[in-house]
Amino acid sequence: MPGEYIEPIERLAESFRRLEGIGRKTALRLAVSALDLTDEEIDAFAQAVSDIKTKIHFCPVCQNLSVGGKCAICEDARRDARVVCVVEDVKAVMAMERVKEFNGLYHVLHGVISPMRGITPDHIKIKELLARLEDGTVEEVILATNPTVEGEATAMYLSRLLRPLGIRVSRLAYGVPVGGDLECADEVTLYRALEGRREL
Amino acid sequence: MPGEYIEPIERLAESFRRLEGIGRKTALRLAVSALDLTDEEIDAFAQAVSDIKTKIHFCPVCQNLSVGGKCAICEDARRDARVVCVVEDVKAVMAMERVKEFNGLYHVLHGVISPMRGITPDHIKIKELLARLEDGTVEEVILATNPTVEGEATAMYLSRLLRPLGIRVSRLAYGVPVGGDLECADEVTLYRALEGRREL
Repeated sequence: MPGEYIEPIERLAESFRRLEGIGRKTALRLAVSALDLTDEEIDAFAQAVSDIKTKIHFCPVCQNLSVGGKCAICEDARRDARVVCVVEDVKAVMAMERVKEFNGLYHVLHGVISPMRGITPDHIKIKELLARLEDGTVEEVILATNPTVEGEATAMYLSRLLRPLGIRVSRLAYGVPVGGDLECADEVTLYRALEGRREL
Repeated sequence: MPGEYIEPIERLAESFRRLEGIGRKTALRLAVSALDLTDEEIDAFAQAVSDIKTKIHFCPVCQNLSVGGKCAICEDARRDARVVCVVEDVKAVMAMERVKEFNGLYHVLHGVISPMRGITPDHIKIKELLARLEDGTVEEVILATNPTVEGEATAMYLSRLLRPLGIRVSRLAYGVPVGGDLECADEVTLYRALEGRREL
């Protein structure tokens, strides 16, 4: 059928489309541009894709990504093991690490509690979090789930679970984003920013 | 090393970066989003990448992409074999096909003559074009190389080569792009548009 792409290109484009933020046009452009790769580059690319599943594991302590055994953050003796930041997914760990301000450890829940989607506390890594708190090393847990309804509910659930254990529990502050424009902030964010205002 | 991505993600991002229009940030975002793919999706993805080199061949007639033997366009008996549109690469074939106006066949040069980069007429598929013209079926050759210095030089070279064979040789028209703004057109394009003006 003239005018369409040949099947191997369409199929590669289909795979690209499953990645974040890639629509059909971009997927096709990427697939076509893969034609310009050398044989070695194609082999390396296919191998790199396969390796994503075979070489990446979860850290047995914090459930973050690891290439085997404990992850680089848990292995780092310079980090403060008394503070654990609880996040929804590994992307949140990467986002936090980019800030370069947080020196504690993480705990990746791999999801949020969502009764609507049938995700109960048993489906995410809460059990593993409780196990980590048993030896008394951890003094503070920062709940950094996303500022969504489900992220908020999960933070509330964890806060009720952890406070009786005598652990300090905190939540990331809400507010207007730095460098942002008040005009662009939604009402809920503005309300939270007002509510959380600090005296100067 | 905290703060950096683990090696399999960095390596996959490296492969993404070799694709058209993908910078480091996008490459990393795509690599991280590949973590969300299922095992089956990862396998299909890796296979699709490999297949780009193993399953795609060049049509023995027009040098366009083909999954084996003649390409779909050369195979299509409804197309006019008397007109051949000469383009630089397979992306140009796809662009022309999207127009849905051209009903002839193609010839993909896989490059342009570029003395600066050491690319002589022998390095691109000119020999194959001449072989196609031998049996007298082709009556017109449309030179649709890109409107760049090298594309222009290649068109001139081909025109001098083909005209003595008694074949009608034409070149795509230059002009201001439809829907564009005169203000945005560069001087050379405007000059060409003026030069090629048509009486109404």
